[in-house]
Amino acid sequence: MKLTHLLALSGSLLMSSTAIADRIQQEPIKPIEPAVITEPEKVELGKKLFFDPRLSRSGFISCNSCHNLSMGGSDNLPTSIGHNWQEGPINSPTVLNSSMNVAQFWDGRAATLQEQAAGPIANPMEMAFTHTLAIDVLRSIPQYVADFEEIYGTPEIELDHVTDAIAAFEETLVTPNSRFDLWLKGDDKALTDDELAGYRRFKEIGCVACHNGAAAGGTSFQRMGVVEPYVTDNPAEGRYAVTGKDADRFSFKVPTLRNVELTYPYFHDGAYWTLEEAVDVMARLQLGQQLAQSDIDNITAFLKTLTGDQPDFSLPILPPSTNDTPRPVPFE
Amino acid sequence: MKLTHLLALSGSLLMSSTAIADRIQQEPIKPIEPAVITEPEKVELGKKLFFDPRLSRSGFISCNSCHNLSMGGSDNLPTSIGHNWQEGPINSPTVLNSSMNVAQFWDGRAATLQEQAAGPIANPMEMAFTHTLAIDVLRSIPQYVADFEEIYGTPEIELDHVTDAIAAFEETLVTPNSRFDLWLKGDDKALTDDELAGYRRFKEIGCVACHNGAAAGGTSFQRMGVVEPYVTDNPAEGRYAVTGKDADRFSFKVPTLRNVELTYPYFHDGAYWTLEEAVDVMARLQLGQQLAQSDIDNITAFLKTLTGDQPDFSLPILPPSTNDTPRPVPFE
Repeated sequence: MKLTHLLALSGSLLMSSTAIADRIQQEPIKPIEPAVITEPEKVELGKKLFFDPRLSRSGFISCNSCHNLSMGGSDNLPTSIGHNWQEGPINSPTVLNSSMNVAQFWDGRAATLQEQAAGPIANPMEMAFTHTLAIDVLRSIPQYVADFEEIYGTPEIELDHVTDAIAAFEETLVTPNSRFDLWLKGDDKALTDDELAGYRRFKEIGCVACHNGAAAGGTSFQRMGVVEPYVTDNPAEGRYAVTGKDADRFSFKVPTLRNVELTYPYFHDGAYWTLEEAVDVMARLQLGQQLAQSDIDNITAFLKTLTGDQPDFSLPILPPSTNDTPRPVPFE
Repeated sequence: MKLTHLLALSGSLLMSSTAIADRIQQEPIKPIEPAVITEPEKVELGKKLFFDPRLSRSGFISCNSCHNLSMGGSDNLPTSIGHNWQEGPINSPTVLNSSMNVAQFWDGRAATLQEQAAGPIANPMEMAFTHTLAIDVLRSIPQYVADFEEIYGTPEIELDHVTDAIAAFEETLVTPNSRFDLWLKGDDKALTDDELAGYRRFKEIGCVACHNGAAAGGTSFQRMGVVEPYVTDNPAEGRYAVTGKDADRFSFKVPTLRNVELTYPYFHDGAYWTLEEAVDVMARLQLGQQLAQSDIDNITAFLKTLTGDQPDFSLPILPPSTNDTPRPVPFE
């Protein structure tokens, strides 16, 4: 990023701070700021837990298996592979910038990252464990006990502490310094003409009605298929599963467009692999717009400017199991 | 490691360099030296490939899945989980210090790390891909093409280059600075009395006949069950599968004992989860020794001093697929 930082600097020299503030104020997508880490020990613990497959029945699946931080915080599969190679019901959403979501999961059934983190551990389709067994594993590992005691003041490891630590780590997974953000912050050279044209079109046709804010999404639930129905074999009914209201049928959380270049395939069913297709489908189904190919190409080019700094940290080294650690059950 | 480094320094001040050289000369286990990286770009490329699940048919399994560098370079399962959750035939050996092995795989069927790296990609029980398809994936990703061109002088990505880069990364996965190595290098305080007693017993009863050298193993093939037969349901016949010689039946490569605290469960069938059990079984079956519990405990304590510095590097960020990248086939 060094060259682009320099460009950003040279760009901002040409634009007054007032003009920059105006731009940020006026644009519907806001810049992402770097994470401010106030509890580094908790984040470190959460990182270890995020990468620890011993939170799964098999000892093989960790949070990172489906929210792979080497791959945009997703698994780049239509739907995920769970315990015993079960085919998951829905596309794994990226964990990147997920702290900015109004709620977690496609249907928003978890209010917070902490609440979300407990879900997959005990989901028989995913990690297929129980919270009790997962806690038993952690309690058998002295290094974890020491970590939890230092951070939470008690050697008793509780599920709330496990999920709190994972959430604290996930809150650090923001992706600042995308080229789009450099442009927002006054570097006019950060975007090409095509990318800027794509962004203008993105605003004109109404994409920003839902894809707005710092995450360019994640702030509301919207019906998938407004103008035309979305045709899919996927049985998910979205927000309806949470509220039971007919009006919420096929209403899903609007996904973030940050790092969307990395989080293919697209939509809750993962049915579309290219951004061009995704842009075309969204414009037709949500906005009743049949876009010209040049618009699709430019909007796609713009979307790729939303790729920010990816997580940069050392691979965590996990504390070893002991003779008392319950053993994984990979095969029945 | 800073404190132990200081201790090592203070220890070496008390021991002359000649005495240290003598100790290293006389002991059957030699210290591990840090990796000297001469081609950092190749190592970086190899690291990405090691973590890239797109080398598998499913898009879900990478080298790191079964040789997890967060967990001693192993998967801590009796036998590995492969494509479609197939149960692997043998325990996944650690990749740590594997460059010191006389050959790769339990039966030594690959002469080099480079040769080994090609195996799991195309093994239908493991990553279940073909080399041709894996290369097609890499060729479709411009960042990989650029990396290979920079390092190998040609944009044509060849299997030999892929496995060469993976091997170059694996060669860096050595684990120096274990407490045992600090002791070898003159720090008498690096080991406790129990650990030293365990090491003495380890030598006296003959474990060092096979577990010697810098890796404390990996240098020869030996029959599993010399004095008594090893009872297992695992059908692997070891070196016999390679040579076809009856004398090689049940002969396996002696595993390294470096980081053995992290690489449970033990033996080629992964049937034993504790070091105490593994020590007891080895002493009886290989050496005809029924060890006292105090000997087992001391030898176990010694073995835990062989845990060295674990790999310390940033999680690699993988270059994204493109519209031309062949798509993974997680489910048939």
